[in-house]
Amino acid sequence: MSDLKNDRFLRALLRQPVDRTPVWMMRQAGRYLPEYRATRAQAGDFMKLMMSPQLACEVTLQPLDRYPLDAAILFSDILTIPDAMGLGLYFETGEGPRFAKTVRSQADVDALPIPEPEKDLGYVMDAVRTIRRELNGRVPLIGFAGSPWTLATYMVEGGSSKDFRAAKTLMVTQPAVLHALLGKLAQSVTSYLNAQILAGAQAVQIFDSWGGALSHSAYQEFSLAYMQQIVNGLIREHDGRRVPVILFTKGGGQWLEAMANTGADALGLDWTSDLGLARQRVGSKVALQGNMDPSMLFAPPARIREEVARILSSYGQGSGHVFNLGHGIDQHVDPAHAGAFIEAVVELSGAYHAAL
Amino acid sequence: MSDLKNDRFLRALLRQPVDRTPVWMMRQAGRYLPEYRATRAQAGDFMKLMMSPQLACEVTLQPLDRYPLDAAILFSDILTIPDAMGLGLYFETGEGPRFAKTVRSQADVDALPIPEPEKDLGYVMDAVRTIRRELNGRVPLIGFAGSPWTLATYMVEGGSSKDFRAAKTLMVTQPAVLHALLGKLAQSVTSYLNAQILAGAQAVQIFDSWGGALSHSAYQEFSLAYMQQIVNGLIREHDGRRVPVILFTKGGGQWLEAMANTGADALGLDWTSDLGLARQRVGSKVALQGNMDPSMLFAPPARIREEVARILSSYGQGSGHVFNLGHGIDQHVDPAHAGAFIEAVVELSGAYHAAL
Repeated sequence: MSDLKNDRFLRALLRQPVDRTPVWMMRQAGRYLPEYRATRAQAGDFMKLMMSPQLACEVTLQPLDRYPLDAAILFSDILTIPDAMGLGLYFETGEGPRFAKTVRSQADVDALPIPEPEKDLGYVMDAVRTIRRELNGRVPLIGFAGSPWTLATYMVEGGSSKDFRAAKTLMVTQPAVLHALLGKLAQSVTSYLNAQILAGAQAVQIFDSWGGALSHSAYQEFSLAYMQQIVNGLIREHDGRRVPVILFTKGGGQWLEAMANTGADALGLDWTSDLGLARQRVGSKVALQGNMDPSMLFAPPARIREEVARILSSYGQGSGHVFNLGHGIDQHVDPAHAGAFIEAVVELSGAYHAAL
Repeated sequence: MSDLKNDRFLRALLRQPVDRTPVWMMRQAGRYLPEYRATRAQAGDFMKLMMSPQLACEVTLQPLDRYPLDAAILFSDILTIPDAMGLGLYFETGEGPRFAKTVRSQADVDALPIPEPEKDLGYVMDAVRTIRRELNGRVPLIGFAGSPWTLATYMVEGGSSKDFRAAKTLMVTQPAVLHALLGKLAQSVTSYLNAQILAGAQAVQIFDSWGGALSHSAYQEFSLAYMQQIVNGLIREHDGRRVPVILFTKGGGQWLEAMANTGADALGLDWTSDLGLARQRVGSKVALQGNMDPSMLFAPPARIREEVARILSSYGQGSGHVFNLGHGIDQHVDPAHAGAFIEAVVELSGAYHAAL
């Protein structure tokens, strides 16, 4: 593997000095880009795009050709694991993900295999290897997976949900069944992320998209505990470099201290948290990633720049901040506005690292 | 007006000693009750039910006839105000509320009248008077309104929204227009709640259902600032009694200190906050209301009781807690489970007020 030409992102995650704040965007390879829509049309549908290492590589690199981003993120989906467990993932137009089967009993959980990544999710590992080769050391590649709780919600509900009624009913009526499912998922996610790391992912992020739907105590028991198991089981050093782990619980702003205690290197923040207060709360335990409201990209470029300045100033001096949106970029954003956002970070953040 | 036979709810909101923790449920007059469904069927639809003072009174009292609740809440909807401003509220089956018109420009805002409550929302005031008469002092009656930001989201979007794209686009492209709208709404909500108080509401709650969708700084500027205006303008004493004000921002658990500084008497908490930690954070500034996950009502009664015990113990000794769910009761809940919840609060909470 070639040397890394830009390691700003990895350094910031480890709170090592950097010349400016690194920046990337969740869902940066996505529908707001016309070139993405073209590749997706060529693939036929989302599943085919995601399952083709060559096309997944192509869309992963697209935003890097447009913007001075400091990281690439594997183009994939968090639901690859339940699909590899045999649930039959499919997408209905305008309806989001669906599963052919649901998991609602101990027998359902017992029947689930733990996927072998290179065998059952080979297309993901091939995508990681292809992207690393094509990146040729420009920026690091981020691998990712969904959190066990987040994956479980889709598996129990059979798809997306507004209130997680089925998953929460399982939680309060048959907690042992849910724990068994989460245990299997923690094991699956751990080996999946480790395989991504061995294939070339230089940092990994765990997306706990639905942890914020839980009560304070249920979050600890049904989401964080299993992310902790994953953190404990991950390869933390590969190819002579630390592989940072980022935990992102959307809606988890009240639980940052507990998240920081897992031993993760960094926490992702959604836009509801004040970055400066969050930094005070977690101290030097973790780096922070985030957290502009993605809706701010609908603003005129001057307003976007103002918001970037505000967030940089809220974090303050020194390393340990990776600039990002607080959630994925919206498909209706004008790519020029995404450019203005990234440019503002590049231009304005150097002042916060003056001591280097 | 007759003397109040049970003032436990009002006393707890003012952190005055009580014999046990008072309890009520958000949306306690609702679809989970067969008697509610019968009255609604009789009315024809939700709008007719809400606009009939007699039927609104009937459904308001239904849960009190089943359960030993410590408060009644006016049966109504937060969208009465935009409807009275001429937007044309209607409900599509399974689709939630919709407006015939939207508000997206300064001209749209300028055209909005400030409703005169007794004239333009007379059906609500008549419902309050009817309910007070029929309650005959059993328990206090809670009046309510939506927060300006929450109402604005519906008015700008034209109905419910998942991501508030139109409302947030207005916020970041034409903030002055949104501020003008919020200012009119704050004025309208203030006079609406004051009219409810004069008609007989003995406490009022402001529902900021969508404040949690805002960034930390946008929350202060676009939601809390206008709730502050309302709190400043409310009648705080009527008929020789303090009229407590409860602020409830769903998803606002990170902002409790700021909310407590408004001068409200109490804060509603959703289930993501730990009640004990919240109490430490707000100190003696406000009482706290909440916060069991409504999904817990899908659990067997023994599990519900355990959760009630956990939450009571988290708050600890002394007054200042009103037990409630962290959000409205789900329509699929078995009424017997709601009964088990209320019974558990009644039976277990006395121990936390032993010093009386």
